[in-house]
Amino acid sequence: MFMLSINVKKHLNKLQQKKFRKEFKEFIVEGVKGVEEALNSEFEIAVIVIEGNLRDNSSMQRIIAKAEKEDILVEYCNHSDVADIQTTDTFPGVLAVISQDEQELLSMTEQKILCLAGVKDPGNLGTIIRTADWFGVENILLSEDCVDLYNHKVVRSTMGSIFHTNVLRSPNLQKDLEFLKKKFDYKIYSLDLHGDDVEKIPSNNKSIYLFGSESHGVPSELENLIDQSYTIPGSGGAESLNLAISVGIVLHRISV
Amino acid sequence: MFMLSINVKKHLNKLQQKKFRKEFKEFIVEGVKGVEEALNSEFEIAVIVIEGNLRDNSSMQRIIAKAEKEDILVEYCNHSDVADIQTTDTFPGVLAVISQDEQELLSMTEQKILCLAGVKDPGNLGTIIRTADWFGVENILLSEDCVDLYNHKVVRSTMGSIFHTNVLRSPNLQKDLEFLKKKFDYKIYSLDLHGDDVEKIPSNNKSIYLFGSESHGVPSELENLIDQSYTIPGSGGAESLNLAISVGIVLHRISV
Repeated sequence: MFMLSINVKKHLNKLQQKKFRKEFKEFIVEGVKGVEEALNSEFEIAVIVIEGNLRDNSSMQRIIAKAEKEDILVEYCNHSDVADIQTTDTFPGVLAVISQDEQELLSMTEQKILCLAGVKDPGNLGTIIRTADWFGVENILLSEDCVDLYNHKVVRSTMGSIFHTNVLRSPNLQKDLEFLKKKFDYKIYSLDLHGDDVEKIPSNNKSIYLFGSESHGVPSELENLIDQSYTIPGSGGAESLNLAISVGIVLHRISV
Repeated sequence: MFMLSINVKKHLNKLQQKKFRKEFKEFIVEGVKGVEEALNSEFEIAVIVIEGNLRDNSSMQRIIAKAEKEDILVEYCNHSDVADIQTTDTFPGVLAVISQDEQELLSMTEQKILCLAGVKDPGNLGTIIRTADWFGVENILLSEDCVDLYNHKVVRSTMGSIFHTNVLRSPNLQKDLEFLKKKFDYKIYSLDLHGDDVEKIPSNNKSIYLFGSESHGVPSELENLIDQSYTIPGSGGAESLNLAISVGIVLHRISV
């Protein structure tokens, strides 16, 4: 019989809420792949929780061995605990509590930057982070009004890429973009419906690729910071492309 | 006071279920944009339902005028009806019941075809249809085990593109692909991790772009029909790209 300690259970439940994630500077990652990615990253792990009756699975054994080696606390829970702590529809048998590890702006000044202003859909944000990771664009700058990076749907849809990328939530994106332009010679490129063909979008390291929200585009206070806008030409009947698809096409373009 | 007739209410509730959508060959589209796209398309509309207290809004007036002109039944409901009939979290005030209008395989034999085998995520399928519409790829062939095309999440995430594209759910995709290859000289192109650079993917009209499911890729029984596979090169840490992103990059590639 496995029992999760009351304290851990309470803590996990608090971490379902954004305000407590912010207070504790922690978040939850679920599933074998996510937890293994966390173990292989520089992120600090507070505790790993495994469903007791799965502990003999080979993937769980792998996780347990690695956690022991790195002196990370592992707790076991039973099936009735799972109902209390699950953050997705079906608890995948393992989760980890991770310390948030955000970047400094000054650590981002040598490479391309993907910048997202006001992205609201958790699946979109997670997919975009995963896509940036695929194309090796590590630096991601988020406006404060984006959906919470540590929302479990965001974390899940990054598919582990949250551990490979440098994400910074900027408290004042306009100021930060102005600073990057002035002090580090960055240019800002964006998409709209009347720009140059996206085939021509520059790909050097002093580039910031700026995307706005799903429904409202780039916020007006950032518009005059844009050096050049580009368009993904379409010949069909759709009014617009999905945001994550647009980001994917741009990131592919600049990685070719 | 507006009241939705019992029959309409019952019918709407049945259309939440796949088996009744199949039996009645109908589906529901919600929201001003979706209903207007339906009105502007060749699709047949059985009934439009509008929340009574919104009937004076200009967008509703536009819909009502257009419906009257085309002799389409409009029913009004009150707010308490909405709780019974909503298909999304918040009923956007208007919906339409539409007759399914699927294509024949023989209508697809002159143009590029996007083919999806086993796509399970409704948001992915809807986004892919929207993306195909953006790039003017009208012909979309689905395997029978894809998520239901008329699932409300699929319909919603197409953002109206379900009315601009020709979608065919094939009862036997392997047979249909063999037929298109043999009788109409189609070539089948797919993505995997070891193919040629996607930059080289052909773009002529006798091309079928085949994508498998999110987790299992192209089913093995279709693999030997593939003429050439391609890869979207990545340099980062992610194991794979999201399916809809991959489709977006390929469709952009072939439209350049």
